[in-house]
Amino acid sequence: MGNCCDRAGNFFGPQKNTNVRVSLPAVCFVWQIAMIVLFGVFIRYDEESDAHWVVHKRDHNITSDIENDFYFRYPSFQDVHVMIFVGFGFLMTFLKRYSFGGVGFNFLIAAFGLQWALLMQGWFHSLDHTTGKINIGVESLINADFCCAGSLIAYGALLGKVSPVQLMIVTLFGITLFAVEEYIILDLLHCRDAGGSMVIHAFGGYYGLAISWVLYRPNLHQSKRLNGSVYHSDMFAMIGTLFLWMFWPSFNSAITDHGDGQHRAAINTYLALASSVLTTVAISSMSQKRGKLDMVHIQNATLAGGVAMGTAAEFMITPYGSLIVGFCCGIISTFGYLFITPFLEKYFKLQDTCGVHNLHALPGMLGGFIGAIVAAAADESVYSKEGLINVFDFEGDFANRSPGTQGGFQAAGTCVSIAFGLVGGAIVGFILKFPIWGDPADDNCYDDEVYWEVPEDEETIPPVLEYNNHMIHKHQEISESNFSVEQS
Amino acid sequence: MGNCCDRAGNFFGPQKNTNVRVSLPAVCFVWQIAMIVLFGVFIRYDEESDAHWVVHKRDHNITSDIENDFYFRYPSFQDVHVMIFVGFGFLMTFLKRYSFGGVGFNFLIAAFGLQWALLMQGWFHSLDHTTGKINIGVESLINADFCCAGSLIAYGALLGKVSPVQLMIVTLFGITLFAVEEYIILDLLHCRDAGGSMVIHAFGGYYGLAISWVLYRPNLHQSKRLNGSVYHSDMFAMIGTLFLWMFWPSFNSAITDHGDGQHRAAINTYLALASSVLTTVAISSMSQKRGKLDMVHIQNATLAGGVAMGTAAEFMITPYGSLIVGFCCGIISTFGYLFITPFLEKYFKLQDTCGVHNLHALPGMLGGFIGAIVAAAADESVYSKEGLINVFDFEGDFANRSPGTQGGFQAAGTCVSIAFGLVGGAIVGFILKFPIWGDPADDNCYDDEVYWEVPEDEETIPPVLEYNNHMIHKHQEISESNFSVEQS
Amino acid sequence: MGNCCDRAGNFFGPQKNTNVRVSLPAVCFVWQIAMIVLFGVFIRYDEESDAHWVVHKRDHNITSDIENDFYFRYPSFQDVHVMIFVGFGFLMTFLKRYSFGGVGFNFLIAAFGLQWALLMQGWFHSLDHTTGKINIGVESLINADFCCAGSLIAYGALLGKVSPVQLMIVTLFGITLFAVEEYIILDLLHCRDAGGSMVIHAFGGYYGLAISWVLYRPNLHQSKRLNGSVYHSDMFAMIGTLFLWMFWPSFNSAITDHGDGQHRAAINTYLALASSVLTTVAISSMSQKRGKLDMVHIQNATLAGGVAMGTAAEFMITPYGSLIVGFCCGIISTFGYLFITPFLEKYFKLQDTCGVHNLHALPGMLGGFIGAIVAAAADESVYSKEGLINVFDFEGDFANRSPGTQGGFQAAGTCVSIAFGLVGGAIVGFILKFPIWGDPADDNCYDDEVYWEVPEDEETIPPVLEYNNHMIHKHQEISESNFSVEQS
Repeated sequence: MGNCCDRAGNFFGPQKNTNVRVSLPAVCFVWQIAMIVLFGVFIRYDEESDAHWVVHKRDHNITSDIENDFYFRYPSFQDVHVMIFVGFGFLMTFLKRYSFGGVGFNFLIAAFGLQWALLMQGWFHSLDHTTGKINIGVESLINADFCCAGSLIAYGALLGKVSPVQLMIVTLFGITLFAVEEYIILDLLHCRDAGGSMVIHAFGGYYGLAISWVLYRPNLHQSKRLNGSVYHSDMFAMIGTLFLWMFWPSFNSAITDHGDGQHRAAINTYLALASSVLTTVAISSMSQKRGKLDMVHIQNATLAGGVAMGTAAEFMITPYGSLIVGFCCGIISTFGYLFITPFLEKYFKLQDTCGVHNLHALPGMLGGFIGAIVAAAADESVYSKEGLINVFDFEGDFANRSPGTQGGFQAAGTCVSIAFGLVGGAIVGFILKFPIWGDPADDNCYDDEVYWEVPEDEETIPPVLEYNNHMIHKHQEISESNFSVEQS
Repeated sequence: MGNCCDRAGNFFGPQKNTNVRVSLPAVCFVWQIAMIVLFGVFIRYDEESDAHWVVHKRDHNITSDIENDFYFRYPSFQDVHVMIFVGFGFLMTFLKRYSFGGVGFNFLIAAFGLQWALLMQGWFHSLDHTTGKINIGVESLINADFCCAGSLIAYGALLGKVSPVQLMIVTLFGITLFAVEEYIILDLLHCRDAGGSMVIHAFGGYYGLAISWVLYRPNLHQSKRLNGSVYHSDMFAMIGTLFLWMFWPSFNSAITDHGDGQHRAAINTYLALASSVLTTVAISSMSQKRGKLDMVHIQNATLAGGVAMGTAAEFMITPYGSLIVGFCCGIISTFGYLFITPFLEKYFKLQDTCGVHNLHALPGMLGGFIGAIVAAAADESVYSKEGLINVFDFEGDFANRSPGTQGGFQAAGTCVSIAFGLVGGAIVGFILKFPIWGDPADDNCYDDEVYWEVPEDEETIPPVLEYNNHMIHKHQEISESNFSVEQS
Repeated sequence: MGNCCDRAGNFFGPQKNTNVRVSLPAVCFVWQIAMIVLFGVFIRYDEESDAHWVVHKRDHNITSDIENDFYFRYPSFQDVHVMIFVGFGFLMTFLKRYSFGGVGFNFLIAAFGLQWALLMQGWFHSLDHTTGKINIGVESLINADFCCAGSLIAYGALLGKVSPVQLMIVTLFGITLFAVEEYIILDLLHCRDAGGSMVIHAFGGYYGLAISWVLYRPNLHQSKRLNGSVYHSDMFAMIGTLFLWMFWPSFNSAITDHGDGQHRAAINTYLALASSVLTTVAISSMSQKRGKLDMVHIQNATLAGGVAMGTAAEFMITPYGSLIVGFCCGIISTFGYLFITPFLEKYFKLQDTCGVHNLHALPGMLGGFIGAIVAAAADESVYSKEGLINVFDFEGDFANRSPGTQGGFQAAGTCVSIAFGLVGGAIVGFILKFPIWGDPADDNCYDDEVYWEVPEDEETIPPVLEYNNHMIHKHQEISESNFSVEQS
């Protein structure tokens, strides 16, 4: 009771104003209204989701409704949707007192981001130049969810240290940068990146790290008491981990080619993830006294195989190739949590709450280069002539590109995504330094009480405690003590 | 420890007997046996799930097994199934000490309800008059799940205040009323209501509210200590919220037309939901001191866009139309939690535990009228001639109905659903007032201990407490105090 | 604080060394490397996931990519995947202090098991004798997940009493035995067992029980304080229960015949599960003072209907037949928790943490016999001539088998699975008795602190407690007491 107010009282040092009562609603309203206007001008149904489909079907001799792209992609879309909202959301609930912020702001970011992504990606990739409209279907929804993933990854580096208004800024710029780098990588460089090792993970990871680096808080140790998990918050985070882990095959296969493309991407991702789990457990156990496992590793590094397969999953990397990728990335990611994150914090002044460097940035970068190598090694004996064309889309302007050249472009694409992340993140970081966004004070990070009405939990006081309490008061009377009571 | 018994002792005032040891098993057995008998008489596989499918395929020149309706609808069915059991179930776990009842009774209601729904909906909609049998397939399962949703919504208004036996009564009548109003609205009035704004949400919401109004408890404040959340119970509720939110596109598209119908319904619902999130956050933040967000709003009002798109999702409402619907309903629903629920409680004697008025009744009603407007505005230029016929099913007896007329019938359908909810709920409420159903006393609501064996949680006492406890006993000895110990 | 270390200090009695810092990483690395080597030698993509699919399609006149098996089975695969990792994983989090172990070791077992299963099942079922390769596709992934389920069920009987190294041994042998008994039952005896009542549940259940019987701990009561749930751990377990319950129709239909086979299996399972819920509630309520429900029953026995339909789901068991199966198995399973488990523990020295006897072994065995009866009763009037051949695969060597004979073989198959479970489990149990695997001491079971870095939960101490604590210290000073403080 009084306690809550006391703690709240601490929030508002002279320099920090965390009141977002004007700014947060203003941003939400302005941006949502802008979305409505822009959707009104630009967004229409594509031919498979428009009521004219019945005519389109007849004109194109499509014999069955099952040929609608909806049936090829909707199950994968829903899996991706779960990853974005439950996967990323619950993975970020591990902090003992920032679970509301973890899952709630994730929800806000993604709900705004997917709208802006439909527009940005539409303008760059699917604008119909005849009508000036963007025609959307289920594949657009998947791509919009993917686009949000970049900003959600960035949130992982910032978790607990920024205000929801800042997160809306991060998302606005994150989606914008994403659409541009994606256009450069996929359209201009003609890279393949179905599961987004480059465009999602490497970009999102370095974007978040660059922002976090600019926003470095030298006195963050003042919030150290809250920068950790409790037993049940670790369990909530495992919900996020498992839904990410289970549905990653859908993530990497959601927008690959119909038929063998989706099929193979799912198999490769499934295998890489399985392999990651074993090496994560091995390294985690080796690193601790008595071989005890650390939940941070299990919650995160087990996913590294999925990140690293984002580019190569649709290629003929072979099942054992997938296992090797998972094997290595489980090790590297766990090492990252053990050594690289503390190192970066100490020597590079980089505070990375969720360790996105180890889960997204580094494995994403590796995934980009793995993709480059596998692409460069492709040949017709493995893919068949037509298969090679299908998988790498060697058609039109790119009909004469060789696998070796493709490998070079894939590697270049990876560098582009990292550059966009670092430069874009640095700029956005400086924007976020303006003292108007309502971010928390250093002694007030990782605390839901700053932005949420938090229930008071009085009922968790076990009965025996009330008994103690009663006894104490009795004692007080008896001993007639007069020391001053400092209620913490 | 003794404490549990002490609290249990309080449960049983002179007037209330919450012992359901005879009534609950009796109801479960009688109804389950009745289901078996009725299924034996009436329910058979339909032609797509019967082993004769191989013959049927040949007779109808169906070239591929993928044409079986199973492949069009099963992924959506599973998403709906998750919404019913995890979505509704976990959304109702937010109370600090009624999580078992929230998720457990939800489970019981739905498991009984879906069986009874297969029969009731079968008799009204798909009875084969030649054989006298109801032939079921995957679409029947989806409809049965939908039918349960009505009763689960009603449970939201009653949460914590009724016994499981009463809930079985609520479900029995709820399913029955649902099937009748659905028959009137969909078959007689020939309305379209794929996602059930009218038949599910408006009906279910008003049904629950009417029951709750009849069962008004003037002394419910005696349970006020338990009518709230704790930190972790709010997190469990977010699991429910997110699974509802993510899978709502499947809910609204599960039984729409194959092809563009399912595709468009999913897109529209996805957009409306995204828009709801932003306006919910905006209003929630505006309403609180220092702009803090309220978990109740985030858990509920973010879903209002999905409810309100239940009727119009399959229409050509346009993407920006969907955003506008979500925009408005997020605002209205959050306002409902802030002002309407307290108002209804104070002036209408209406106790609505989960605020189903704001999440289901009101957005459902709005959704019905939005559907009416969008239907009335339909024309061939937007839908194409054949598309218009497909979407509104202007065939057979209804071949000459105009969109304008259809709009009128849609509006009439909304009124029918509300009337059924209110009148049916009032009658069921009076049935539930009989003092034989084992409902809890006023000071005993929202408490799992009434109907569940609750673990004692002794282990949550932190070690330091045991130390205190030990110290206290020592002190007791030392000071030889003789005051009476009242264990709370 | 110091407390953690004190408790840790208790873990290491003279006779038990739970340090797995060498053994666990060694096992993980050795086995993962072995998997990579064996995959390199044996595992390739099948024709539907290989880039040659475009050629294969043309050669076989396949007109649409939607004919790829991926689209028939991938949605079911993902549901099964959720059951394995979230379903089984969270169901085992019910213990108050073994939730990390429940969900984490489940993750480890399944991630290793599915790789080994792809190899073992490949060698027995799908080795291409021309090339010496195993060609995998989405159906292989489902089968690998199924295979893991056997070992995860066994883990249920051992939960809290074994080390992760022992679990890797259990899994290695469990997968191996599974593949052999599956080969005998499905290939040699030509049984049908789509959802694995026999090969998964009866085998896995008896395998785990036999291991547990060999590993009997007479002094397990020393860990009694931790062998129970707390409020929130029961809620986490309900996540597991519900995802198992909801997706069981996918489990039983995932590898049945395309078309009516998958469709019918889903319907039958859906109905059996619904029926189980009502009888579980009935028996649970009857068995307790005042009719209170027991979470253990709701979490487990509600699933018995799905287990028991594992064999018969694809048969024409009729909808009411499914309800009857669920009705009986809900009763039997709940009775099992009430009477059989305590009986087995007392008189057979069998400690079964999760009660897998009641949820898997017994309903699995019943499911096998139910399948035998339904198979024996099959005739052409119900299935059609072709339907009968399709469902029971009466082709090739088995073209002349009658339904009656098939029933006999189904019953024999059930006995084979039980025999494999009991004998295999006994042997594995003896292997696990070697004192080198790092299993916990009797007073140290059900405790995550043995194998996990557990967060200290200091923040759960409510503020008032710190106040007490402060007061105590003051008192201490005042009364200058000198009694020795034993921090518990």
